[in-house]
Amino acid sequence: MADYVRNLWYMAAWDHEIPDGGMLSRTLLGEKWLIASLSDGTYAMLADSCPHRFVPLSKGKLEADVIHCPYHGLGFDRTGTCVHSPFPGPPPAHVRARTMPVILRHRALWFWPGDPNKADARLIPDFGFVDRDGMQRSHLVIQGHYELVTDNLMDLTHIEFLHVESFGVNGSIFAGRQSVVTDESGAIWNNWDMEAVPAPAWAAPMVADGARVDQWLYMRWHAPAAMALTVGLSRTGTERRDMVVPEMVNPHIITPETSTSSHYFYDHEATREAEVLARKVFIEEDEPMIEAAQQSLGTRDFWDARPAILETDAGAIRARRRMMQLRRAEAADEAQVGN
Amino acid sequence: MADYVRNLWYMAAWDHEIPDGGMLSRTLLGEKWLIASLSDGTYAMLADSCPHRFVPLSKGKLEADVIHCPYHGLGFDRTGTCVHSPFPGPPPAHVRARTMPVILRHRALWFWPGDPNKADARLIPDFGFVDRDGMQRSHLVIQGHYELVTDNLMDLTHIEFLHVESFGVNGSIFAGRQSVVTDESGAIWNNWDMEAVPAPAWAAPMVADGARVDQWLYMRWHAPAAMALTVGLSRTGTERRDMVVPEMVNPHIITPETSTSSHYFYDHEATREAEVLARKVFIEEDEPMIEAAQQSLGTRDFWDARPAILETDAGAIRARRRMMQLRRAEAADEAQVGN
Amino acid sequence: MADYVRNLWYMAAWDHEIPDGGMLSRTLLGEKWLIASLSDGTYAMLADSCPHRFVPLSKGKLEADVIHCPYHGLGFDRTGTCVHSPFPGPPPAHVRARTMPVILRHRALWFWPGDPNKADARLIPDFGFVDRDGMQRSHLVIQGHYELVTDNLMDLTHIEFLHVESFGVNGSIFAGRQSVVTDESGAIWNNWDMEAVPAPAWAAPMVADGARVDQWLYMRWHAPAAMALTVGLSRTGTERRDMVVPEMVNPHIITPETSTSSHYFYDHEATREAEVLARKVFIEEDEPMIEAAQQSLGTRDFWDARPAILETDAGAIRARRRMMQLRRAEAADEAQVGN
Repeated sequence: MADYVRNLWYMAAWDHEIPDGGMLSRTLLGEKWLIASLSDGTYAMLADSCPHRFVPLSKGKLEADVIHCPYHGLGFDRTGTCVHSPFPGPPPAHVRARTMPVILRHRALWFWPGDPNKADARLIPDFGFVDRDGMQRSHLVIQGHYELVTDNLMDLTHIEFLHVESFGVNGSIFAGRQSVVTDESGAIWNNWDMEAVPAPAWAAPMVADGARVDQWLYMRWHAPAAMALTVGLSRTGTERRDMVVPEMVNPHIITPETSTSSHYFYDHEATREAEVLARKVFIEEDEPMIEAAQQSLGTRDFWDARPAILETDAGAIRARRRMMQLRRAEAADEAQVGN
Repeated sequence: MADYVRNLWYMAAWDHEIPDGGMLSRTLLGEKWLIASLSDGTYAMLADSCPHRFVPLSKGKLEADVIHCPYHGLGFDRTGTCVHSPFPGPPPAHVRARTMPVILRHRALWFWPGDPNKADARLIPDFGFVDRDGMQRSHLVIQGHYELVTDNLMDLTHIEFLHVESFGVNGSIFAGRQSVVTDESGAIWNNWDMEAVPAPAWAAPMVADGARVDQWLYMRWHAPAAMALTVGLSRTGTERRDMVVPEMVNPHIITPETSTSSHYFYDHEATREAEVLARKVFIEEDEPMIEAAQQSLGTRDFWDARPAILETDAGAIRARRRMMQLRRAEAADEAQVGN
Repeated sequence: MADYVRNLWYMAAWDHEIPDGGMLSRTLLGEKWLIASLSDGTYAMLADSCPHRFVPLSKGKLEADVIHCPYHGLGFDRTGTCVHSPFPGPPPAHVRARTMPVILRHRALWFWPGDPNKADARLIPDFGFVDRDGMQRSHLVIQGHYELVTDNLMDLTHIEFLHVESFGVNGSIFAGRQSVVTDESGAIWNNWDMEAVPAPAWAAPMVADGARVDQWLYMRWHAPAAMALTVGLSRTGTERRDMVVPEMVNPHIITPETSTSSHYFYDHEATREAEVLARKVFIEEDEPMIEAAQQSLGTRDFWDARPAILETDAGAIRARRRMMQLRRAEAADEAQVGN
């Protein structure tokens, strides 16, 4: 279960999670890493385990962009080089901390666990919309494999069941038309169009009594599990750009913590009410369901458990297949290198 | 440790544990199952893991004898057939939930995890005595392999040590005579007869001062671990049917929850006092001892740990040997099917 | 990780941890053992798992130097022989509890998990200094492999970082000279001499203003991990025996609890202040660091994790190498016995 695809950008944290000039420790892809905020506004990412006696460097001090081990005082720079020793003589050159490329983009830190020479920043998916006013960016951990979370997000029909109390939906999703497309950037879109349906409860006050609306839910997916949801609503018969409310786009970015748990990065309006709703949906509704699915799977691989496939899984399955292809390609590359 | 014998009736629950028209989720033989109470008074038993995305069906709704998944709304009937889909078109016929035969008998639900064609209801052991007034039927979980619980029950000499405070015993059990017999139904009886011994504390007021009594403790065992204890007491020199108090029979039915934990189904008089005593005996006295034995065994098989065998183990060992024969027979059958 | 060297003396407990005429249960080298205080002032050590049904004998009763099982009443003497049965007839001679040699010395109980014929009491390292007035002997458990604790103690330079708040050190340790020597008893000494350094904060009132001192920290190690720390301080230019305060010696004796946790036996002055300081240093400073190192190592062997080696590790590495030699020698002996 732990054969992560390595040559991809993964999200490590929101920028506000790392204190200015400070460090954050986080388990990512099964290992502890620290993210350090440096004086030039960039970041460094080091294995959070001193190469000398394996203690967490993040419990030490960050001074002048050098991370000092809390145990015996060795200091490491952003490249993982030991640049300070408390003892006479030069720092031991053979002592090196592991590092990964890390880049700040769209208020998020992105890291590349594979070959650093392939870490092209242009491959980071576009989440430019994240950087807007009035939003609060949040993080939680879900006790399930990251692809179970992808399944959840790439099939939004579950909102009629799991989130029926939170969203006041009315069954109109079942009248929707699903389309799954892959765009030129390689993103997979799972699109759900509902035409001439009754307005959802939250929008009813904004449309004429009894008037029909068109609604769309478009989920964009980039490997490994960086998703963006677009929600739109227009009066039926009008142009789609004549929307009842402005189209909303939100990030749903998933990063494996371990083979059975996932980081979930999302945002919501910076109000107490929106925060409470988001937590209800994610923590009380989605999380227990995904965790129960994980427990049911246990240590089995998803496919070994012979899941039934529904038509509505088309987007989720295309994403899973993409990840499988990437895993196989990396395994083949490694086998070749081994020869 | 998890090679359960499958072609046997196991007890899943007392009938009152399943709400009318509702569901109960329970881990049995290492897997989660749900028991649903249907409108015709019978029950259904389905794997508590939706065949689509493995979430617990028991968290969904039971409506008109159809179990609706809480995640994406598929509905399953008692045969595990998908009979409802929220989307247009027929329900997906290839999506099936696993089921097991389940029968209500003697206020208990009995399930058959093996070949359904062999699930003959006449093989359910007779616990007819359970259905009597004034009794409360209870359930607890013990953190130990079910055969460690069998050992406990098939050698009641431990009441002189483990339950000495609860039962006010007086050592007379050591003057007893043990006999182990197999009856025509295949049940193994571990019988303990104490002749001309002082009356136990609880019976003393009912016999003449200093008069001797005959006491008997008969434990009946059916595979895998369905036991019934008969306790009797008569004045020495009288016929056994001339009892001081009516003979008492109580169920002690054990079902594996996992390879290291067990369901324990028992009953007691429906008084607060009897409930407190039963909980003291089972939860404070037996449970910690069996749990400690399990921890000491760890993942080792019982026989690999080379237990010392005492004469008083005769009944317990005969039951263990029976289970071993059944396991071997099933393994041989499976090997043959494989050829 | 669990290939303990068996032909060595390990410390099990301080004498005051075992009640007079009572028992202590403790996990040692991955197994539960009981230590019983006998009427002649000596001790017995038995596997804390009855050979009959594996329950903890320590939950039973110790009467007249016989340990009675709480489950079915078998009684065992100090040799592990079953000397009592509640049933008619002689006790079952084939039922034996495992034992280990155990000796009281220097207020501590020492046990020998290997071949009892090799258990020569003269091999117990000398901790005679432990038996002095005004000291409190203590015990705690550290969630790390015992050799990670050895590493900690055999490289005291960490006090400048990890204990900088507790000990008010001032960097003078970096001016020290390390020497690692093996004495005729086989003990490895990691010695740290600091000459003509400023007095540490605690000693400043006792030396003339601005006067320099010589300080020494000598850690003595015996296999597997029985250590003693000598701390001394004299005015620079005087003889070392002309000390500012009397030389202090303290035990730091480590015994594996499991392959990832360790017993730590230490002492300190019998004052509330000294107790608080010791707990701060061991529990708040050392323990979390060693536990984090263990978590980072996970199930990997120390050497498989390719630790960087520093000059200051010389003592720790010599101790690790000694343990490796002892392990290999025992493995070779066992292989030979197998032939």
